[in-house]
Amino acid sequence: MNEIFNARGSVLIANVTLDGSIVDIAIDETGTIAAIGKDARTAIDADIVIDGSDRLAVPGLVNTHTHAAMCLLRGYADDMILQDWLSQKIWPLEAHLTGDDVYAGTKLACLEMIKSGTVAFNDMYFFMDRAAAAADEMGMRATFAYGFIDLGMEEKREAEIKATEALVAHIKSLANPRIKAAVGPHAIYTVSPEGLSWCAEYAKEQDIGIHVHLSETEKEVTDCVAQFGKRPAYLLDECGCLTPKTVAAHCCWLDEAECRLLGQRGVTASHNPASNMKLAVNRAMPYHWLKEAGANVALGTDGCSSNNNLDLMEEMKFAALLQKFAWNSPTLLPAGEAVSMATAAGARALGTGPGTLTVGAPADIVLLDARAVCNTPLFHPESNAVYACNGSTVMTVLCQGRVLMHEREVPGEEEIVREAAAAAQSLVDRAQEAQ
Amino acid sequence: MNEIFNARGSVLIANVTLDGSIVDIAIDETGTIAAIGKDARTAIDADIVIDGSDRLAVPGLVNTHTHAAMCLLRGYADDMILQDWLSQKIWPLEAHLTGDDVYAGTKLACLEMIKSGTVAFNDMYFFMDRAAAAADEMGMRATFAYGFIDLGMEEKREAEIKATEALVAHIKSLANPRIKAAVGPHAIYTVSPEGLSWCAEYAKEQDIGIHVHLSETEKEVTDCVAQFGKRPAYLLDECGCLTPKTVAAHCCWLDEAECRLLGQRGVTASHNPASNMKLAVNRAMPYHWLKEAGANVALGTDGCSSNNNLDLMEEMKFAALLQKFAWNSPTLLPAGEAVSMATAAGARALGTGPGTLTVGAPADIVLLDARAVCNTPLFHPESNAVYACNGSTVMTVLCQGRVLMHEREVPGEEEIVREAAAAAQSLVDRAQEAQ
Repeated sequence: MNEIFNARGSVLIANVTLDGSIVDIAIDETGTIAAIGKDARTAIDADIVIDGSDRLAVPGLVNTHTHAAMCLLRGYADDMILQDWLSQKIWPLEAHLTGDDVYAGTKLACLEMIKSGTVAFNDMYFFMDRAAAAADEMGMRATFAYGFIDLGMEEKREAEIKATEALVAHIKSLANPRIKAAVGPHAIYTVSPEGLSWCAEYAKEQDIGIHVHLSETEKEVTDCVAQFGKRPAYLLDECGCLTPKTVAAHCCWLDEAECRLLGQRGVTASHNPASNMKLAVNRAMPYHWLKEAGANVALGTDGCSSNNNLDLMEEMKFAALLQKFAWNSPTLLPAGEAVSMATAAGARALGTGPGTLTVGAPADIVLLDARAVCNTPLFHPESNAVYACNGSTVMTVLCQGRVLMHEREVPGEEEIVREAAAAAQSLVDRAQEAQ
Repeated sequence: MNEIFNARGSVLIANVTLDGSIVDIAIDETGTIAAIGKDARTAIDADIVIDGSDRLAVPGLVNTHTHAAMCLLRGYADDMILQDWLSQKIWPLEAHLTGDDVYAGTKLACLEMIKSGTVAFNDMYFFMDRAAAAADEMGMRATFAYGFIDLGMEEKREAEIKATEALVAHIKSLANPRIKAAVGPHAIYTVSPEGLSWCAEYAKEQDIGIHVHLSETEKEVTDCVAQFGKRPAYLLDECGCLTPKTVAAHCCWLDEAECRLLGQRGVTASHNPASNMKLAVNRAMPYHWLKEAGANVALGTDGCSSNNNLDLMEEMKFAALLQKFAWNSPTLLPAGEAVSMATAAGARALGTGPGTLTVGAPADIVLLDARAVCNTPLFHPESNAVYACNGSTVMTVLCQGRVLMHEREVPGEEEIVREAAAAAQSLVDRAQEAQ
């Protein structure tokens, strides 16, 4: 089995079901899809052959908003009011977080994402050099932003600028096409207009993305209107933060005009339905307005402490069901659109290719078990993927043609789980000793 | 491996984690929990020993509202307006449904429920003798109601009475303590007050339960008020249908007084969050009122064509998140209450024991993988079960001390999947030929 994980070369996925037909998928040495079809196997001299019988091929999933290392805090505290949860539980733990913790937590997060079909993620947190090391080792694509928070203080802003510049320089020095940097202004209520403007300028100068929280709660909107006389999307736009490389997470409380603005700017709105429900934000992202406005609507899990997992297959179901329920329309966000949000829209957001299984695209491929109970019967595979299955249906995962999981085996799984569990316990112990 | 499924005798689950302690669970020849503790293994001379290391023991889950055989229609049609979906898609298929289809579909449903930790279910559909045969063979507990629909017509009512009496007589003739009958008046908008009253009388006479849909949509309420001058729960109550053995599914549109009425009558309200979201019923069950009123609130998946799976682990998450979102309170329905809904409340609804792992209780036991990624870290196991894990975390399932699944193997799985897929295709083919 180990050869399949260590091998570098061309790959043939033989006799796999793609869009209802049984085909071969040929992947060249660079990890690019070279041919798809009944005789695609002749296009390459395959170093690795994967049997695709009883497997459905779908594009690798893309998680456009998470805080990966927060996996270490999974289940530490739930069912609380947001402010109590943050001040009594999360912040006291985070104060003791080390780079080693972030490395262990991100490894666990990568393992979880691979096991549920995700090949790329958009991360915002601290100690991001260590998170990048974890994602690189796991073979995933990822974009890392340092969470920039100045709270309106010039001194703090200078420190955040330095931290952002250091992370971007570090990521660039890796010269790894799978690992990218973004600028991460946390939100309009934690970053001053000066800070936001610096982030926008710096992202433009470095030609990298922006990762920001937008209109998660009603309070954010009312406070913004009271302080600045305008709604959050307009404030972000004035500071230059709304660009085609911007991913705005949550977007629950956007009004119709803000949705049009996001569409005009070509922004990606990352829908995080499970987190929004769990934290009771009291409004679902207005998907219909964003879609109408031409914004790129993608999917994200948010961090594990407010979800509490990173399973994008499950998140597709939450998105499709929450939109129907919250906007009172059983036809809103049908299965096919939910799949596009989790694949093509995510890939567009992070610039990782078309997010489709087509010749010339990066071989980011997930194989689902066509004989699973959740895929029985199989009238409309996208319906089964969104409404019936979860991440456990994922059997094999390739990223840029490299096999990250095969037949549900990920190399090193036991060690990653053991070390993350130990890191989480040690973190809690340190925080309790300090009290 | 096969011995463990075929054996009938005493069972020892050794070194399993229960409520944070590592214990033995000893099960006697009748399938009853005989002892729990560090030295429980001395209580029996075990015929079968199951290694409980790295496993968390939880009570078997109970699905209090489903139409099991509708598994055959999974993904056949989604994302439609309810009336179009029923009239254009579901009813034309159901018109061709045979007893063999119901048998194959219920087998698939049982397989799916076992694989996600469910040991008992409350079913309403047609050809229920065949459904009962499927559940019996799979080793599960189930209560079957024939879906009684008279549409106010006396002739139809007479036929429904006969069908109900025949099913109840058949189930009683099986003399199988795992298999029970209930009376199944479909809903107040499909059954006349005369039909409802007959159902109540007959259930009382036979000392069996009632299984009914209640206030799923706003239209049901407004129509009922217009026609009868009262809300649906009061109409049901006047007909004698609200009893401690009644399971009322959905309950989305109950007002506060109706919740108090359900509490006074000791009714079970079966919450079906995924179905309610998918069909956009526009209101979530008022859990807080029902809880305050002392009603027994349990959990159900509804049928597979409106969910589209039978995974109660997933349903716990939908329940906990939907309640928080819809009623705007992050503290509503915490993890522990969601687990109780899916276990103790369900067992109370169907009369299958206490639904807890205690000495003297039936050995309906689920073992979860404590080393799964979703159980890492494991600060609060109930939080992990509700918010992080899904049914794939279930490793072993026992019902009345008999092993239905071990290490995710269920005897006959491949054949059940193959036959259900063939039955579903044949059903669709027949329906299309007839058009």
